[in-house]
Amino acid sequence: MKIYITEVAPRDGLQNIKEIIETDKKVEFVNLLSETGVDEIEVTSFVHPKWVPQLADAEEVFQKIKRKEGVIYSAIVPNERGFERAIKVKIDKISVLTAASDTFNRKNINTDIEGSFEILKPVVRNAKEMGLLVRGYISTSFWCPYEGKIPGERVLSLALRLLDLGVDEISFGDTIGRASPKDVVELLELILREVPLDKVVLHFHATYGMGIANVITAYKDFGVYRFDSSAGGLGGCPYAPGASGNIATEDVVFALREMGAEIKVDEVKVVEAVVKVGLPINSSIGKVLLPKLSTL
Amino acid sequence: MKIYITEVAPRDGLQNIKEIIETDKKVEFVNLLSETGVDEIEVTSFVHPKWVPQLADAEEVFQKIKRKEGVIYSAIVPNERGFERAIKVKIDKISVLTAASDTFNRKNINTDIEGSFEILKPVVRNAKEMGLLVRGYISTSFWCPYEGKIPGERVLSLALRLLDLGVDEISFGDTIGRASPKDVVELLELILREVPLDKVVLHFHATYGMGIANVITAYKDFGVYRFDSSAGGLGGCPYAPGASGNIATEDVVFALREMGAEIKVDEVKVVEAVVKVGLPINSSIGKVLLPKLSTL
Repeated sequence: MKIYITEVAPRDGLQNIKEIIETDKKVEFVNLLSETGVDEIEVTSFVHPKWVPQLADAEEVFQKIKRKEGVIYSAIVPNERGFERAIKVKIDKISVLTAASDTFNRKNINTDIEGSFEILKPVVRNAKEMGLLVRGYISTSFWCPYEGKIPGERVLSLALRLLDLGVDEISFGDTIGRASPKDVVELLELILREVPLDKVVLHFHATYGMGIANVITAYKDFGVYRFDSSAGGLGGCPYAPGASGNIATEDVVFALREMGAEIKVDEVKVVEAVVKVGLPINSSIGKVLLPKLSTL
Repeated sequence: MKIYITEVAPRDGLQNIKEIIETDKKVEFVNLLSETGVDEIEVTSFVHPKWVPQLADAEEVFQKIKRKEGVIYSAIVPNERGFERAIKVKIDKISVLTAASDTFNRKNINTDIEGSFEILKPVVRNAKEMGLLVRGYISTSFWCPYEGKIPGERVLSLALRLLDLGVDEISFGDTIGRASPKDVVELLELILREVPLDKVVLHFHATYGMGIANVITAYKDFGVYRFDSSAGGLGGCPYAPGASGNIATEDVVFALREMGAEIKVDEVKVVEAVVKVGLPINSSIGKVLLPKLSTL
């Protein structure tokens, strides 16, 4: 099975770093990641700079990166204002946001689930009219830091509503990294009855140590082949200070190759990309490779 | 399913720490671990101090620890000389050593597989005559740093030989932390045809990021319920500097509880034990808990 990797470090990783990183460094990072073999790079978010100052240079980054043939360059578009910004740069794909918890939506985007759909509906309509690919994120698809375990039926119903609107794929997020393979089995058993496999993307965090186990379970038991991951394990979770963030791309591709999957991502290049731009490595494979890289 | 945890930090964890730790600190560590709910503690190794100076105080540690009713206190006994030392202190169980690779055995214990059996045979015989429990370790049961992937048939044949000698259980070690759930499935499918489930212990390292996935796979797909793990993820692998060591007890018990297993280990107490004796935390659950502990 060929694996499809969406590299989210430039967005999900960097947005958790307080110190503002120079635009040219971000551009270099995306360019290096383009050469690793990942299928897609989530470059940035067209969120209001007031909320995420780190990504205030979204347009500039998008205009300066060197596109590699075959790689899809995407960004988060949280609302119509963000969409207007995004279409001024060449963008292949946009991602819209909701979460399976009213409380989390309120904390994250200042409205509840219904409100999030009111915001994303016109964005999806406009994007599809322009022929763009559209991803729908469902954050807290497994656990919510405020509401606890999320019922799978609710997640399924949101996924079907997004697909009805014309969204091309759903990324089910374990936002706080709390899901276990048991949770993954339960949700996938429910979702795959109605959502086609090629529209299912899983987005795990490593916080509670089960991220790679979740990827392997989804692949081994259900054939899920599309995953979000972050080079170097960049990212974090504001609800668990010091804890790990996104699952690391290098750990995901190493593990899935060992499982027998077809992998075109080169994990050495992934780790090198992070090291070259001076960002920290927080991954198992990164720690194994680092001593070898430094002697090159 | 009730999980059985052998806590190996006092031996497998500490032997990888260069700076010599005071005997009283080791005793305190074992005493704290005795209160966490683990079933067994591998207290030390009666190896010659020349090879592992850190564990030169094996007798003294064993004599000073406070035994908790219901907890089994074990140690590694690499040869007859070690056995003579071990039986002078009250010991519940001994562990003998082999590996599924001639090269690894030579590097580790200075003899090949056959030589290791010559050494361990009289130890097992004497231990069983004295009514002690005996574990057999098979290191490099999945991968060898020198010989690569190890054939499962060889591992099975060694396990059966050990059981024939009267060994009570086998701990199959992924010494370099390189095994994937695919490797685990392959080995367990083979082994469980001839080795009873209650004699199977799995000993994983976290080096390549798949340790917890391996535990979950063994539990979920085969019902394996006995695991070795190390408080705080203490330990390491001399073949991958900087890389993670043993899988952390707190990560194992958290993950297995999430999978629905019956867990009596308190992961907060495990992390506290490591922190109290001033040792480093290298685990996902540890990182989540640390900020909470420091405010207590």
